[in-house]
Amino acid sequence: MTFPKILAPLAVLLLTGSAAIAEVTLINVFEVPPGQRDAAIAAWEKARDFLQEQPGYLSTALHGSLDPQARFSLVNIARWESPAHFADAIAAMRAAGAFPPVDGVVPNAALYEVVRAE
Amino acid sequence: MTFPKILAPLAVLLLTGSAAIAEVTLINVFEVPPGQRDAAIAAWEKARDFLQEQPGYLSTALHGSLDPQARFSLVNIARWESPAHFADAIAAMRAAGAFPPVDGVVPNAALYEVVRAE
Repeated sequence: MTFPKILAPLAVLLLTGSAAIAEVTLINVFEVPPGQRDAAIAAWEKARDFLQEQPGYLSTALHGSLDPQARFSLVNIARWESPAHFADAIAAMRAAGAFPPVDGVVPNAALYEVVRAE
Repeated sequence: MTFPKILAPLAVLLLTGSAAIAEVTLINVFEVPPGQRDAAIAAWEKARDFLQEQPGYLSTALHGSLDPQARFSLVNIARWESPAHFADAIAAMRAAGAFPPVDGVVPNAALYEVVRAE
């Protein structure tokens, strides 16, 4: 299959998209008590600084709710090369031991794959 | 600013990315009882079919947990042009009245913006 030259960058993007099927999405849903959002973000930044140096890390985006009363006011969505890469990174972070929990902040982390997309 | 012709598709992508700042992310975290995942996905598909016809809809991706025991086994991540577009679409869906809840499935929907990204 050949592409007109003008479409070459698009072809690369399409191929990159296909390769992404083996990747995995971490979604971490945080319950954050009133007044603890800044502390939770600061703790997340420390964890991010550690995790983004680990093998298999691809990207991360911390989402904050527009409504401060939302049940889950912070949600992190990250991409990792594989479940094994993520498990190794979390084990390394725990072994480093420098990431105390924030009072009242409850994380709910799990790995996901896309099952439907439009 | 001018771009070499070969980079034109990339320039469009970059501009699209800039425009995305005004957009909003819907994250809907579902608690799904054992055995109800297929029914929850079927209900989500019906809602998607309705919502993707509404003004302001951009995209949606339903994520399923790799571990079936995860607290939240389904998470929907969608993009809308604005909070008002999403509110209008949900109001229209409720008015249409054809979307019964699935036994035991608890949605937790809220709108988010990215507060940190790497």
